[in-house]
Amino acid sequence: MSAPTSSSVGKSDLASRLRQIGEERYHHRHPFHLRMHEGQLTRGQLQAWVLNRYYYQSRIPIKDAAILARCEDADLRRAWRKRIIDHDGDGDAAKPGGIVKWLRLVEATGLKREQALTGEGVLPATRFAVDAYVHLVSEKSLLEAIASSLTEMFSGSLITLRVDRLRQHYPWLSGGLAYFEGRLTQAPEDANFALDWVTKHAGTPAEQHLACNALRAKCDILWAQLDALYFAYVEPGWPPPGAFRPVDHGKS
Amino acid sequence: MSAPTSSSVGKSDLASRLRQIGEERYHHRHPFHLRMHEGQLTRGQLQAWVLNRYYYQSRIPIKDAAILARCEDADLRRAWRKRIIDHDGDGDAAKPGGIVKWLRLVEATGLKREQALTGEGVLPATRFAVDAYVHLVSEKSLLEAIASSLTEMFSGSLITLRVDRLRQHYPWLSGGLAYFEGRLTQAPEDANFALDWVTKHAGTPAEQHLACNALRAKCDILWAQLDALYFAYVEPGWPPPGAFRPVDHGKS
Repeated sequence: MSAPTSSSVGKSDLASRLRQIGEERYHHRHPFHLRMHEGQLTRGQLQAWVLNRYYYQSRIPIKDAAILARCEDADLRRAWRKRIIDHDGDGDAAKPGGIVKWLRLVEATGLKREQALTGEGVLPATRFAVDAYVHLVSEKSLLEAIASSLTEMFSGSLITLRVDRLRQHYPWLSGGLAYFEGRLTQAPEDANFALDWVTKHAGTPAEQHLACNALRAKCDILWAQLDALYFAYVEPGWPPPGAFRPVDHGKS
Repeated sequence: MSAPTSSSVGKSDLASRLRQIGEERYHHRHPFHLRMHEGQLTRGQLQAWVLNRYYYQSRIPIKDAAILARCEDADLRRAWRKRIIDHDGDGDAAKPGGIVKWLRLVEATGLKREQALTGEGVLPATRFAVDAYVHLVSEKSLLEAIASSLTEMFSGSLITLRVDRLRQHYPWLSGGLAYFEGRLTQAPEDANFALDWVTKHAGTPAEQHLACNALRAKCDILWAQLDALYFAYVEPGWPPPGAFRPVDHGKS
């Protein structure tokens, strides 16, 4: 792609703009997460979270395969396939991938893994937001597809805080936290690679604008999932027809 | 498609099952509509509704064109193209199509039509749900695409009630209601045609199951849009980053 022009910003400026978007829009600020970290969620609310978030997890390797399917560059494909391997594992029960680890978190909340696998009761709004992510990486430019992954630049500190607070406030979940421990090393590696790629390939102001908008769109996708959870299970607490209803619904 | 088998239900039974789904899941029961019809919405909340619903309106002819693009049968195409004409009109200002009429409703609330046209401030959750509708009709079977339009079976009585209550509770909106008046004759014609087509082409239990699920999915799409509006603008009243903020937000 084009070299930076006089009106484009340099690599480090673009990285700063992307970080600023995360500061303003990443879901570390969402009230559902704030309640989670303050220990204010009920078991049923945490069940709703892991069940809905499983739908997101289940689409991550599909999203990454859609990106892989669009890469002409074998170097990029080789680097990106790591993400699919991280999530799907290699079938060795001793070294589970991210999806199997998330199913353990599902079980730690007291739900059956089959409920997550079948997707029964997942909020339609979760599906709409997550499917929008798969469509974004399939239909927009490769630059936008890769830039949309940059929320991982911000996930490290959120996950560190989350693991700490989940252990503190919900000790009965402690056996299910392996997913997050894995992500603490995987996410920064992935984010560094993607940030380097984006800053190299977004040389013009128009490309930088696309990259920033793709990151905003991804933040919207994450935020909308928590809005839907909050509406259905916290306040006003109205799950839509057909959605999961926790046994302790209403208590907090 | 296949003729009914011993375990399939007849035409009138399928129509009853579809009506039952509407009774349980159509958005006439949604608390946002209940508040609207009771006169409890502020002007700002109505602005948020017309702005977000404009995004839905703007995608209807695109959705219908996606269906048209998949029809092998010229009779079906001729019947279905009416919907595109109803929404887009023929450019004659004296006989505006549904989209232009909706823009008049936007203006009647005090918003500028440009805000709807640019989509600035539309909730991401609205886009995700509406785009899911376009993807449904593009990617699922033609039977499911057409069955997903059957929410129009239920729109007549909702629109009749709505026009009456909007006039009663929000008289300043009265100049903007032409959209609904047009739909009172268009929607039943469209629904009758689609119901007849679906009952003719869903002969097997598997096909009838697909048709029912497509109607459920469409109800989910409508419901999720109102959930997002309620969450952002009624209770708790937290618009996501970048979303429209009414001037009277918080008053009711």
